[in-house]
Amino acid sequence: MPRKPVITLTTDFGLADHYVGTMKGVIAGIAPQSTVIDICHQVTPYEILEGGFILEQAYRYFPKGAIHVVVVDPGVGTSRRPILVEAAGQYFIGPDNGLFTLLYAAEPKHKVRAITNKKFFLTTLSNTFHGRDVFAPSAAHLASGKAKPAQFGPLIKDYTQATAIFATRTGKRVWTGQVLKVDHFGNLITNLRSSEFEVGKAKHFELLVGSHIVSRFASNYQEAGFGEVFVIEGSSGYLEVSVCQGSAARQLGCGAGAPLELSLW
Amino acid sequence: MPRKPVITLTTDFGLADHYVGTMKGVIAGIAPQSTVIDICHQVTPYEILEGGFILEQAYRYFPKGAIHVVVVDPGVGTSRRPILVEAAGQYFIGPDNGLFTLLYAAEPKHKVRAITNKKFFLTTLSNTFHGRDVFAPSAAHLASGKAKPAQFGPLIKDYTQATAIFATRTGKRVWTGQVLKVDHFGNLITNLRSSEFEVGKAKHFELLVGSHIVSRFASNYQEAGFGEVFVIEGSSGYLEVSVCQGSAARQLGCGAGAPLELSLW
Amino acid sequence: MPRKPVITLTTDFGLADHYVGTMKGVIAGIAPQSTVIDICHQVTPYEILEGGFILEQAYRYFPKGAIHVVVVDPGVGTSRRPILVEAAGQYFIGPDNGLFTLLYAAEPKHKVRAITNKKFFLTTLSNTFHGRDVFAPSAAHLASGKAKPAQFGPLIKDYTQATAIFATRTGKRVWTGQVLKVDHFGNLITNLRSSEFEVGKAKHFELLVGSHIVSRFASNYQEAGFGEVFVIEGSSGYLEVSVCQGSAARQLGCGAGAPLELSLW
Repeated sequence: MPRKPVITLTTDFGLADHYVGTMKGVIAGIAPQSTVIDICHQVTPYEILEGGFILEQAYRYFPKGAIHVVVVDPGVGTSRRPILVEAAGQYFIGPDNGLFTLLYAAEPKHKVRAITNKKFFLTTLSNTFHGRDVFAPSAAHLASGKAKPAQFGPLIKDYTQATAIFATRTGKRVWTGQVLKVDHFGNLITNLRSSEFEVGKAKHFELLVGSHIVSRFASNYQEAGFGEVFVIEGSSGYLEVSVCQGSAARQLGCGAGAPLELSLW
Repeated sequence: MPRKPVITLTTDFGLADHYVGTMKGVIAGIAPQSTVIDICHQVTPYEILEGGFILEQAYRYFPKGAIHVVVVDPGVGTSRRPILVEAAGQYFIGPDNGLFTLLYAAEPKHKVRAITNKKFFLTTLSNTFHGRDVFAPSAAHLASGKAKPAQFGPLIKDYTQATAIFATRTGKRVWTGQVLKVDHFGNLITNLRSSEFEVGKAKHFELLVGSHIVSRFASNYQEAGFGEVFVIEGSSGYLEVSVCQGSAARQLGCGAGAPLELSLW
Repeated sequence: MPRKPVITLTTDFGLADHYVGTMKGVIAGIAPQSTVIDICHQVTPYEILEGGFILEQAYRYFPKGAIHVVVVDPGVGTSRRPILVEAAGQYFIGPDNGLFTLLYAAEPKHKVRAITNKKFFLTTLSNTFHGRDVFAPSAAHLASGKAKPAQFGPLIKDYTQATAIFATRTGKRVWTGQVLKVDHFGNLITNLRSSEFEVGKAKHFELLVGSHIVSRFASNYQEAGFGEVFVIEGSSGYLEVSVCQGSAARQLGCGAGAPLELSLW
C-alpha cells in the first residue's frame, strides 16, 4: 500500500443525506492517512449498469493501489456477497451483483474474492446500509496497510456478470447497441467503442437513435453548427451523440437504454 | 487534538454556489493539516431540525476529536449566538438555534460554550455569511491545536432547545410521532426509535402514515414484494417506511413532518 | 510551493458523471500530497461569466500558492488556448475564453501565460475533456513543485476579456446593471459593488429589478418582515436582493442576466 492510499467512492446515495459523509467518518477512524475521492454519488438509484459504467470511465486515471468502493446495491441485507476485486494494480470493493461486468471485460486478468472475514466490518451490522457497515470499513482496513487481500476471504469463480451489454453485429455492415448514459450536458454516450467503429474515417455512416438518423461526424463540439446533431469520439472511448451547446438527450428525446443501430460504409 | 484533525461540514448552502468551497479555503489557510469532510449541504433551506437530524445520524461514526461545523442559520446577523458544544469526545460548532437538540438528548454529558472571542473570526465580518466568517475559522483554530475550547468563550446553560420532537404516548398501546426526513431513495425516516418500538417482534402492529395503514414488517429491502409498503429497522436507528425498489414518499404522498400513529400489540 | 499545496476545482461538469472524480484521479497520480477542494461544479453549462464570478467570490479566502482550476469551456478542442494566470500570489488555470475577466479587474497586477508545453498534459489528448487531459495535469505538475510557471509557456498580452460586465452610469444619479447570479436561497446577486453604492447610507434609493421597485434596505435577513423584498449588502461584496426566508428570484420572477436600474439620492 502506498503511504497515502486513495479510496474512491461511487454510489447511488445522492448528496441530500448523511450517507456518504458517514462512510467517510468510518474511513477516517480506521485509515486517517487515506485520501478519499468522490467519483459520483448520483448514479440513478438501483442502476447497477450505470454505476459500473461510471467506475469503468474513471479507474484508469487513478494511481496504482487505489481502492474503489462502489455501492449500487438493491440487494443489501440479502445473501448477495460483498466482493474484493484485484485488477490493473488496483482494488475494487462492492456487492457481487454484476456491478463490475465492464471492469471484468476491460481487465481480463482480474481476481475476485468473497469478503467473508467479519473482522473488517463494523461490529453492529445493519440490513440496509452496508456502505457504512461493510464496504467502507473493508476499504479502510485494506488502505491501512495492515490487512492483505487474502485475509478478506477466498477467491471465487462464480461471481455475477451482467448479461452482455456490448454492441452486436446484426448485418454485414450493421450493429445494434444502446445508450449507456446521458451525461450532464445531455450527450448520449453509446456502447459503441470509438476504436472499433471509426465513423470519422468511414465513407458514410448512419446512426439510428430513437427515430432520428445521425450521419454527421464532428471532431470537436464547435465544428458543427449551433443546434446540429452529430457523432463525436467522446472522452469516454465510446461514440457519443451531441449537439453544439445543446442537449442531444432533450433534442432527440432519448435516454439511457435507448436502442441504437449503426450502419457503416 | 490529533495530528490530522477531521472537520466536517453540514449546511443548507447547496452546491451551486461558492459558499462551501470558500469555507474550505478559510480552513485550509488556518489549519492546512486538517481533513475536511462534507456530511451534507442539501439540508432544506432554514430547516434546523433536519440539519440536526443529519448530524445526529453521522457523528457517532467519526473518530474522537472530530470537529463538526453545522450551519443552518436563518438568524445569521442577528443576536443569536455562535456556540461550541463538547460531547462524546467530539466538538460541534454552529448557531444557537436548536440545531443541536437531538445531540443534547443523545449525549446528556454535553457542555455548551458561547463563542465570544472574536480573535477566532475573520477580521471583516459580514451579516450574511457566518459559515465563512465565524464558524469555519473557529473550527479551524480549534483544529490547529493552538486554541483550547475554554478560550472560545464561557460555558452557558441557557442554550436553545427545540420543542420536543420525540414520539409521545397517547394511549395504552398507541404513540404519535412524525416523519423526520425523506431520504434520497424515498424512505420515510420516522422519529420512532427501533430499540423502543420493536415492531419486528410484535404480534401485530399498525402504523398510520398519512391516510395509509402499514402493518407489514421486513428485515431487508427485498423481503417484501416489488412495490409493497413495509416498515424496516433502518440504519438510522429509527423505524423507516419503505417500498421495495420504489419511493415510499411518492407512493404514500408523504414528506418530512407528516404525522404518524403507531399501535402495537 | 507549500508542502501541502491546495488545488481548487470550479466547473460546469455537474456531479452526476465521473468527470470531476476523474480529474481528481489524475491529480492524485501526479501530486499525491496536494489537497483538492471543490469550489463549485454546478456552474450553468457554458456560462463563462457565472464561472468567473464564482471563482472571484472564493479565491481571496484561499491561502497563498493555491492553484485554481476553472473549466467552463464550450470551445474545448478548438484553437482556444489553455492559460496559466498568476495573481494575488495564487495561480489560475483554465481556457482563455474570458473566464478570468473579473479576476483581471480585481487584480490589476496579473500575468498570463499560454500553456504550450505538452509535457504537462496527459499523453492521449481527447477533443472533449481537457479538464482531465490538460487542466488537471497542468495544475498537478505545478503543485508537485517540480515545475515553475515559466516552463508552462510564454507570457501573452492578447488574452480574452469578456465585454464589460460592470455597472454603467446612465444619468446623474442613475446606474444600470444586471443580476450576476441567483444563489441557492434565491438571493439575486447584482453587479453593483456595495462599497461603491452605499444604499444603506442613502437618503432614498430605488432599485428597479424586472418590473419591481425595491427601496427597502436591511442589514440582516431577519430585519425585514417575513416575505418582504429588500436590498442587503451580501457577503459577496455586491448588493443583493433578498426576501426574508423566501426566494427573491421566485418572488420577483428574475434570474441571472436580468437588467437593473439603480437611482440614488
